[in-house]
Amino acid sequence: MRNSNRQWILKRRPVGDIKPGDLELVEQPIPVPGPGQILVRTLYLSLDPTNRIWMSDMEQYMPPVNLGEVMRGGTLSVVVQSNNDGFQPGDVMNTFTGWQEYAVVDGGQKLPPGLPLPAYMSVLGATGATAYFGLLDLGKPKEGETVVVSAAAGAVGQIVGQIAKIKGCRVVGIAGSDAKCKHLVADLGFDAAINYKTTKDMRAALKRECPNGIDIDFENAGGEILAAVLDNLAMKARIVLCGMISQYNAQTPPPGPSLTNVLMKRARIEGFIIIDYLPRFGEFFAEMAPWVMQGKIKYDTTIVKGIENSLTALDMLFTGGNTGKLLIQMSEEPG
Amino acid sequence: MRNSNRQWILKRRPVGDIKPGDLELVEQPIPVPGPGQILVRTLYLSLDPTNRIWMSDMEQYMPPVNLGEVMRGGTLSVVVQSNNDGFQPGDVMNTFTGWQEYAVVDGGQKLPPGLPLPAYMSVLGATGATAYFGLLDLGKPKEGETVVVSAAAGAVGQIVGQIAKIKGCRVVGIAGSDAKCKHLVADLGFDAAINYKTTKDMRAALKRECPNGIDIDFENAGGEILAAVLDNLAMKARIVLCGMISQYNAQTPPPGPSLTNVLMKRARIEGFIIIDYLPRFGEFFAEMAPWVMQGKIKYDTTIVKGIENSLTALDMLFTGGNTGKLLIQMSEEPG
Repeated sequence: MRNSNRQWILKRRPVGDIKPGDLELVEQPIPVPGPGQILVRTLYLSLDPTNRIWMSDMEQYMPPVNLGEVMRGGTLSVVVQSNNDGFQPGDVMNTFTGWQEYAVVDGGQKLPPGLPLPAYMSVLGATGATAYFGLLDLGKPKEGETVVVSAAAGAVGQIVGQIAKIKGCRVVGIAGSDAKCKHLVADLGFDAAINYKTTKDMRAALKRECPNGIDIDFENAGGEILAAVLDNLAMKARIVLCGMISQYNAQTPPPGPSLTNVLMKRARIEGFIIIDYLPRFGEFFAEMAPWVMQGKIKYDTTIVKGIENSLTALDMLFTGGNTGKLLIQMSEEPG
Repeated sequence: MRNSNRQWILKRRPVGDIKPGDLELVEQPIPVPGPGQILVRTLYLSLDPTNRIWMSDMEQYMPPVNLGEVMRGGTLSVVVQSNNDGFQPGDVMNTFTGWQEYAVVDGGQKLPPGLPLPAYMSVLGATGATAYFGLLDLGKPKEGETVVVSAAAGAVGQIVGQIAKIKGCRVVGIAGSDAKCKHLVADLGFDAAINYKTTKDMRAALKRECPNGIDIDFENAGGEILAAVLDNLAMKARIVLCGMISQYNAQTPPPGPSLTNVLMKRARIEGFIIIDYLPRFGEFFAEMAPWVMQGKIKYDTTIVKGIENSLTALDMLFTGGNTGKLLIQMSEEPG
């Protein structure tokens, strides 16, 4: 192992697609923990569409990452050295230390045992909580309703669909390949899936798969997919606006969908950001952990090894290269 | 008075702006009431932006008016002849008999006394109820919040603003002339008003008048005005989507505003149609009637005389020719 701390630094705000030089991989000394502090080694880094938002200076829900700073990201880390009696070397915990191999922290949330570590970075982490609270709190699914999920094979989408099935809904996923669509239906229990890349008329396809209209749309995509969804709403539909990944690389925000049908169907579009629900994570964990342990909720992870691959891996989120949660494994799990 | 019943018939669905020949004024015999029925003479016809929707075959909240049928519209009528013991000639009542001078009905809602008849067609009718339930039920205004109203000098908008003032909000109106803006502030108690026709940068103007962001937007306009509003939302803002008059004459629905800020601000856009609230009109009337009688809520009416002027008068809604409620007076009130 290197005796250094590699970090990705935001050098300049990307314009459109992220370009070489927007972020730079640098090598720093491993930091030294002060009194009461803890040195952690990063095991896993969460890659999420919202990373692209944090790189920009658009109006957003957290301050953007400052130029010259380590790129922000959720992490899972192991304690290397501790000056805090509450933490011992080898302890594994949730951290938020960003795109770097080591960091000094004051504390962190230790993980309960029982599941592979990547589960705590996906279905039982912020990703799963996004699916859980977004669908249940804003979508309020009722038995027999029809739920559409875009980016359905993604980390959030696949959990949304499975929770909706538990709640007795008809679930239609939208994904970007036949393999993903097949996986959603055959392995994850979706009722139907639509490959938006090969479907010429998304409005007609949604109409076919949602003959009673769409009661809930869990929106991760935005753009043309959202427009097609809005044209198929059922009365009093709820659109959980969780993400609009189709637009994050746009240089100027494109116009949105016509809202005419939102008016006609008395529908509701509501923005959802998971940080509002941090105080309620216990509630989520208590219900989701048993579902995962009992196999009622499955999850995929796409794991790319090595901090040096973070930026190329991030691009998979925008090109559809991953299935389920996309993680960088920065170092080996403790034995 | 003519011994005939003039009616406006929908002959063909308008494409874009309404054109001569889309509707036709015809003359029919005055209908004869059967057993138990009532012949009424129309006093006032309500003209509303939604009339344009009813003429089209777009997906909408009621069936469109069929070709060859009398144009639909809310009316206030007086009983001419009654075969129903519950109604006497001279009784005035709410009806929904459309763009014609006479009609046969089975009944109607008689008006309580105490206010000029046009009040029952505006502030105390569906117009006032739209403002009342849209603002209070969906907008949920709290003291000190900032409320923006588009088409603020219109029939609904002016009532929305005044209710919001009663609830202790800062109220900013958007209207289409300096005279309307002055009226909103000087006579109706709005805190500020913006003339969208002379304001080059609506985003900047809204930012200036709403320094803490917009908590509630009561949306009647749509289009560029809505887009500028969305760029100035406060956290957890509510957009009451009541109308999008800027789009009703469009041949194809234009795209909507970018929803990025709805996501970032966890805002909510919700469609509102007054017919959902018909069962709760008693609740509305009980609170609004005293406000009107005590002068806490003022209202304007623009009254055009003569059924033959209905179509040219309707155009005022789209060009900004009216202030407050636009009515056609079809015949004289009973003495």
